[in-house]
Amino acid sequence: MAVYTGPVQDLVDELGKLPGIGPKSAQRIAFHLLKLPRDDALRLAQVITEAKARVSWCERCFNVASEALCDICRDDRRDPSVICVVEEPRDVVAVEKTREYKGRYHVLGGAMNPLEGVGAEQLRVRELLARLADEAVTEVILCTNPNVEGETTALYLAKMLQDVPIKVTRIASGLPVGGDLEYADELTLGRAIEGRRTV
Amino acid sequence: MAVYTGPVQDLVDELGKLPGIGPKSAQRIAFHLLKLPRDDALRLAQVITEAKARVSWCERCFNVASEALCDICRDDRRDPSVICVVEEPRDVVAVEKTREYKGRYHVLGGAMNPLEGVGAEQLRVRELLARLADEAVTEVILCTNPNVEGETTALYLAKMLQDVPIKVTRIASGLPVGGDLEYADELTLGRAIEGRRTV
Repeated sequence: MAVYTGPVQDLVDELGKLPGIGPKSAQRIAFHLLKLPRDDALRLAQVITEAKARVSWCERCFNVASEALCDICRDDRRDPSVICVVEEPRDVVAVEKTREYKGRYHVLGGAMNPLEGVGAEQLRVRELLARLADEAVTEVILCTNPNVEGETTALYLAKMLQDVPIKVTRIASGLPVGGDLEYADELTLGRAIEGRRTV
Repeated sequence: MAVYTGPVQDLVDELGKLPGIGPKSAQRIAFHLLKLPRDDALRLAQVITEAKARVSWCERCFNVASEALCDICRDDRRDPSVICVVEEPRDVVAVEKTREYKGRYHVLGGAMNPLEGVGAEQLRVRELLARLADEAVTEVILCTNPNVEGETTALYLAKMLQDVPIKVTRIASGLPVGGDLEYADELTLGRAIEGRRTV
């Protein structure tokens, strides 16, 4: 039903294509943008254009980068002997926020999902193997999500790397800090018990 | 913590200013836009720019319009003797979707909210009174939201119009269609009983 005048409908339609934005939110954001002072609304258009023009992918690890290599790959204080393998650039941010990790990354660009036709060929697995051959890497941390796709991907990579003389580790699954035993699902609690450590 | 490279952080920041978009969603949408083909992402920037350039407010009713008057005010099949007073342009859309209403609108631009300094002067009340003086209006439907601000605004307008020889009506409050008596709050159920009609 074409209730909106042309450009408004276009705006609602494009906003509705964004992840997590339903029709109601798209409408709300569209009218918010229409109500905003001109410059404030155009700033959003500008940063989108700017980001698409200036941001690309790091040639080495496929993190977001505004030069050939990303900020982390260019930082020579980072330990080049450890590679943390993640699914997406946003996972790099999540790991960085812990301030626990000083190595480098490798962004796969997703996780294996046979139902959606995503196999190892669709991910940057070949590029990871090339790095392991070229760089002096001693440990690979498999830091994919602890869900079905992420676990499948981690298992696949672990199997693929079993003959390479490199330590391959997987991040721990268990109860979240501040969590409650009573409310934990059996799988998570099972993993927490399985992964118990001596105190 | 400046984990993102400049233009990515700018994009996350601007997206985070949109209503209903928290930091996590902003990040998710930003990486979605970065991953999209260039043209698809730039289309969003274009429609924002386009909408800001072409969309303004109707001179008569303050709905969104791409000409001096909005589509509804320009449509001479609409009944000019009834004005439906709403808070925002999105409320026009909500009423239009019912296909029950054939009159015109007046968009106040918000609702009275003394705590946030929004009084009648901040709304397009003066413009409504001018229309009632100029146009041959026989009924004003107060269609502001059934919440505190909307009710206050409706009461204020009803009082202001009590000496004008125009029928002033308020939309009904009651249980939503498909709703459940058991789960209705007392206020809504009270209103439903108060507003009962003979069958």
